[in-house]
Amino acid sequence: MDESKRNVMKNKVINLIDELSEYGKTENDGVTRTLFSDIWMETQSFLESDLTKKGFTTMFDEVGNLYGTVRGTQDTDETIMIGSHIDTVVNGGKLDGQLGIVAGIVAIEELIEEFGLPKKNLEVVSMAEEEGSRFPFTFWGSKNIVGRVAEEEVKGLVDQDGVSFIEAMTDKGFGFRNNNSLARSDIKAYIELHIEQGGVLEKEEKSIGLVNGIVGQKRFLIEIDGEANHAGTTPMGYRKDSLHGASKMIDSIIELGKEFGDPLVVTIGRLDVTPNTSNVVPGKVIFSVDTRHTNNEIVNEFISKFSELIESISRDMDLNTKVNQYMDGYPVPMDEQLITHMEKICISKGMDYKIMHSGAGHDAQIFAPKVPTALIFVPSRKGISHSYLEFTNPDDYMSGVELLKELLYEIAY
Amino acid sequence: MDESKRNVMKNKVINLIDELSEYGKTENDGVTRTLFSDIWMETQSFLESDLTKKGFTTMFDEVGNLYGTVRGTQDTDETIMIGSHIDTVVNGGKLDGQLGIVAGIVAIEELIEEFGLPKKNLEVVSMAEEEGSRFPFTFWGSKNIVGRVAEEEVKGLVDQDGVSFIEAMTDKGFGFRNNNSLARSDIKAYIELHIEQGGVLEKEEKSIGLVNGIVGQKRFLIEIDGEANHAGTTPMGYRKDSLHGASKMIDSIIELGKEFGDPLVVTIGRLDVTPNTSNVVPGKVIFSVDTRHTNNEIVNEFISKFSELIESISRDMDLNTKVNQYMDGYPVPMDEQLITHMEKICISKGMDYKIMHSGAGHDAQIFAPKVPTALIFVPSRKGISHSYLEFTNPDDYMSGVELLKELLYEIAY
Repeated sequence: MDESKRNVMKNKVINLIDELSEYGKTENDGVTRTLFSDIWMETQSFLESDLTKKGFTTMFDEVGNLYGTVRGTQDTDETIMIGSHIDTVVNGGKLDGQLGIVAGIVAIEELIEEFGLPKKNLEVVSMAEEEGSRFPFTFWGSKNIVGRVAEEEVKGLVDQDGVSFIEAMTDKGFGFRNNNSLARSDIKAYIELHIEQGGVLEKEEKSIGLVNGIVGQKRFLIEIDGEANHAGTTPMGYRKDSLHGASKMIDSIIELGKEFGDPLVVTIGRLDVTPNTSNVVPGKVIFSVDTRHTNNEIVNEFISKFSELIESISRDMDLNTKVNQYMDGYPVPMDEQLITHMEKICISKGMDYKIMHSGAGHDAQIFAPKVPTALIFVPSRKGISHSYLEFTNPDDYMSGVELLKELLYEIAY
Repeated sequence: MDESKRNVMKNKVINLIDELSEYGKTENDGVTRTLFSDIWMETQSFLESDLTKKGFTTMFDEVGNLYGTVRGTQDTDETIMIGSHIDTVVNGGKLDGQLGIVAGIVAIEELIEEFGLPKKNLEVVSMAEEEGSRFPFTFWGSKNIVGRVAEEEVKGLVDQDGVSFIEAMTDKGFGFRNNNSLARSDIKAYIELHIEQGGVLEKEEKSIGLVNGIVGQKRFLIEIDGEANHAGTTPMGYRKDSLHGASKMIDSIIELGKEFGDPLVVTIGRLDVTPNTSNVVPGKVIFSVDTRHTNNEIVNEFISKFSELIESISRDMDLNTKVNQYMDGYPVPMDEQLITHMEKICISKGMDYKIMHSGAGHDAQIFAPKVPTALIFVPSRKGISHSYLEFTNPDDYMSGVELLKELLYEIAY
């Protein structure tokens, strides 16, 4: 692609991101746009008219997802879907989610300008929700597209102002799907471009991450009961110190996680001490364990090993410890053929890429078990996300858009 | 002492404790009686009239301490003072403090009944305050008696309802001492009987603890700055995990403390994580260290060793750690001659005693640097104190009262 063409495309992307970012703009130039809010509805409506203006055929589905389609000239029962989510966390950035929608729109525009209409349908999707930031439910958009939502799952949910999920949804004219299954058999691939939300690409000076799998997340709460005692009058030998036990467990779990090696990660992010007073031996400690891996067997092996460690430390220290698992997500591999395609493009275009996993969840993991799915990462400065400080150098994300455009050309033309 | 005499004395102690415990009685049969409250004033007034009835000469000093004196027949410039504090923590028990006052009153009553008036003056003191439970200031009673309070120390203090220390004090007719120094040269010994507030005597099945020293308390806050990161997208090798660092430090500090051995104790009682969310690598941790010993040199050696450990762990893990000391109390030895006296009595009476240190603070530590001081412990069931569950078997505390009586006979008759 020559330099002037590249600049035109870059400006299109930057302009559309800027236009979208006016919807829900916060004081410090971030974005707050939660599911079924007024500003969320205005954003989807703006996108609908923008897509129409650009020649896409638009449609809302029953649950709030917006589609913009360019019909193919040949395989009209085959659709390549490109997109991401339009919602944000509270005080989020300008790239998480909407960059994937903008990338799809601009890539398709450019393809048509350069090569005319595609053989297969190209369809951009602006999905209603992924973050779970208004209601305690995630992937509302993609789960509906693949038919993985039961009405019961959201029926009791309310936001922090007491508005129910259903009330918020019907207020904007949406509802449940009539037939909650993957009605569409035309989707032949789903492709998502997203910021990494981690610091790996930046640290390794790569513009592109080709995601080979999204980790499965497993979460636990470890509850340790010891004995609260006076810090002065209880000799060391008479103590049942739950925080001392927790310290040994935390160190052992993390060191064991390091031994397992990448891509396993394990995080103890939350720890609460009772009574949490400097002159009382801690009677009770609760801490969380979050562990993720792209291989379910390996992460389960890790879990069974750290559970043994917890049990043995607890026994040695005469503590009473419970291990409660409250999340059991499975790893999801991305489509190998699409990765091979993308890798070839990166090599031929001289792009600095890295084949990597995703440690965070994305809509792509909902599509992947149903249709061939690709997830393209672009770098996040300092790994920061879910913050107005979220930033990617436009030259980097334009490498991602260029890769997306080339991939679409290869599979849809 | 024959059985019936012992029972009369026991009933006197039980009755006076019960009478006193009506003042500030809580729903669950505990006691709340904080400095300069109405109920505190009523308690001191009740005690004043009780002491008068029993033949003591009573007096309040300027700051709120109540004294009941029996003049000696011979050495009238020499006074043996016996007592403890009349205030309690919020929802405290019936023994912490007032048992030492009641023990003094009953022991003196019995001595006079049996042997007539003493040679030296015997004086019971019901000290205004020791707990620091209304205002953030401790040992108001004993510090005033030995002249260790500067007006400035309490001038700015307010309770949680916004009432100032001075307002509360003057409201009950008290004020600062005219001459804030140890005006009285007549006090030749101070003797305090107190519940152990720990579980050592119970575990070792002893009725009496002869305290040889009160620990010095040193307190620290350790502040660790790492880097808050996404739990999924940050590989283990890229983390600066402040809670992992804290875990290693806590385990090392406690294990080192155990190596130092009794009577050293070290407690990490408080730990706060920021942001304290299961899916974020902890950016910041603050934890407390409380360490106590009867030997100042040894505890300082321990502190310098654990500070080195903290520094080395912090450096290895690329964390930024600050160690701030906010309390530096010195150990206080009790009078050796008095201990020898008491030990002989215990042996001759066949009492199960243990020479031990105190891990908690007591009025005795304020007196000890100025006058020969003895501290007698009686067991605390399960080591529980500062709770309505506080309990000592009357047969155990009566051993303490009997020891006190014998000691007073030896030194004042």
